[in-house]
Amino acid sequence: MMQGVLSGGKVIVAGSEAESLVKGHGRKRGRLELEEAAGLLETDKIEIKDEEGKEMSPDEFLKRALAISPEFGLRYIVYNDLKERGYVVQPGGVDFWLYPRGVKPGEKPARYFIRILSESDTISLKELVELLILARNMRKAPIIAVVDEESDITYYEVKDAKFEKREARKEELKIKVKASLFGDRVVLWDADLADTLYRTYFYGNLTKEKRLLLSFLEAAFLMRKGMLEMEVAPQLSTLNSQPFERFIEYASAIETDFRAKYAVYADLMEKGQMVKTGFKFGSHFRVYKAMQLKHSLYLVHVLSEEHVFPLPELSRAVRLAHGVRKRMIFAFAVAEGIRYVDVGRMKL
Amino acid sequence: MMQGVLSGGKVIVAGSEAESLVKGHGRKRGRLELEEAAGLLETDKIEIKDEEGKEMSPDEFLKRALAISPEFGLRYIVYNDLKERGYVVQPGGVDFWLYPRGVKPGEKPARYFIRILSESDTISLKELVELLILARNMRKAPIIAVVDEESDITYYEVKDAKFEKREARKEELKIKVKASLFGDRVVLWDADLADTLYRTYFYGNLTKEKRLLLSFLEAAFLMRKGMLEMEVAPQLSTLNSQPFERFIEYASAIETDFRAKYAVYADLMEKGQMVKTGFKFGSHFRVYKAMQLKHSLYLVHVLSEEHVFPLPELSRAVRLAHGVRKRMIFAFAVAEGIRYVDVGRMKL
Repeated sequence: MMQGVLSGGKVIVAGSEAESLVKGHGRKRGRLELEEAAGLLETDKIEIKDEEGKEMSPDEFLKRALAISPEFGLRYIVYNDLKERGYVVQPGGVDFWLYPRGVKPGEKPARYFIRILSESDTISLKELVELLILARNMRKAPIIAVVDEESDITYYEVKDAKFEKREARKEELKIKVKASLFGDRVVLWDADLADTLYRTYFYGNLTKEKRLLLSFLEAAFLMRKGMLEMEVAPQLSTLNSQPFERFIEYASAIETDFRAKYAVYADLMEKGQMVKTGFKFGSHFRVYKAMQLKHSLYLVHVLSEEHVFPLPELSRAVRLAHGVRKRMIFAFAVAEGIRYVDVGRMKL
Repeated sequence: MMQGVLSGGKVIVAGSEAESLVKGHGRKRGRLELEEAAGLLETDKIEIKDEEGKEMSPDEFLKRALAISPEFGLRYIVYNDLKERGYVVQPGGVDFWLYPRGVKPGEKPARYFIRILSESDTISLKELVELLILARNMRKAPIIAVVDEESDITYYEVKDAKFEKREARKEELKIKVKASLFGDRVVLWDADLADTLYRTYFYGNLTKEKRLLLSFLEAAFLMRKGMLEMEVAPQLSTLNSQPFERFIEYASAIETDFRAKYAVYADLMEKGQMVKTGFKFGSHFRVYKAMQLKHSLYLVHVLSEEHVFPLPELSRAVRLAHGVRKRMIFAFAVAEGIRYVDVGRMKL
């Protein structure tokens, strides 16, 4: 039986048997992290003494570990879960390193790093971005492990989402339609043009009277493209000069988040995606591959860069997207443009 | 053909033919609301002149109606949708009255009143409660109609949720277990007692080493019931006096919303419900009928009374609950205790 001594928040082991068992474990040979020592102790592979030379039972060791580090509780729950799933896991890095099943640390590099959170914690968009920066620098993928109140664990993967301009949008028609305000949307009265915009470009919603109802986002984008001109009621005559800018101002007065939503909408449209409202799925947009409206692949929700997620909010968004076979993507404006972060549930 | 004149934001009709057609329409005979007049005009059942006696086309009338009331746009979209679904709908009340299919207004009272919102609007918990108060006073049920950016409409019903104490909880055991802090949860070390609390009362989560991990909520509730005593580490010795109050303070320091969550948790437990975390469904709790853990019926999310929903947030919560065959319930503390509001999608 391997012998260890708890000292300075680690368990020091010695002897050739110990050397072989803990090979690769930890960066310093002969030192076990608390989770590793607890795991070995509970499976009868080690005896651990305290500084006074008294042997500790597993319960006694866990209590000591908790006194040393309050984070030990959550960490040990996740450590055990990953072990039970057959993974090789090593304390260190952000929280843990995760190796593919069956691989010994040292043989191959870790594939993932794990950040551990509790259901009652929050995580900010900025922290998600930091995980992605870290991931790129370390050439690993990040996993967030959330321990819920029942001590069940949900694993999330975090990725950069890329919308590449893969397919050229059909050449834009040399048309210019006239439209007017219709409450908090825009209506296009000409039945033929309405039909063209709806059937060829998937804009808006065609009523049974063959009018096209466009959202403010769609109308603004079409104005920007020079394809739409607003018929202006006298009380809105300021729209006549710089009509696009005036329209954006007008829409922002009605919808407080209009500018943020428009920035993302226009960015996705310019990249050749088809963008419709994601309201029925609780997100701002559902996004289709260019020119085919069969099954949307993404839900995109627009947030401010300062957004902080309570973890149930993140769980709700990802779970819903997952349930309708879409990816959940959070979009926000940064200095360089729009950033898209993809958060998905991970089956480990 | 019926003849009407637009005047003062209504369409005035006269003649016996008009009388019979608009019978019951509107509270004042011979006056049509804008949505009603537009509906009749678009189906060629009326001719409408402006104040100067010039006959208006449907497009011209809609433009005039929009100039009179910016809300006309949204209202007319909802009005048409309900008509197409075969309902009798009448402008008035909160926004519209809704009658059962085939019934003529006046013959029977309206069953619902409808509040119209746009996807980009918000609704506060207080407004939801006001709808419920109004509903009780008027003996009608409230419906929220949300028009999304695609001009599709989602209908929500709003109800008071009642958790009646129907079934007595199994007589509480005269046990007192000792437990200690385990990071942001509580651990019970005694394997037999752990097993009893887990299998008989469904508390916590049993580890493979037969320890019971309890959430802070569960531990606080068991302390309150006199069934749990915290073993206190020296650094937490203030727990010794008024242990329950001290524990609540301790938990609140770790989890900012702990008090609000505990108030709802304890209220549901006292009413004989079984309450577990709803994290995987993005809500604070999933709630089972007493003593059977087969399928939870409710998701309960705790909010502050001041909460304001962006409508996509409401949509996301209700859609997710619907997808897993549960009711979505929002809980919040009011002066008299806890109030539960049930929001569901309504198939019209």
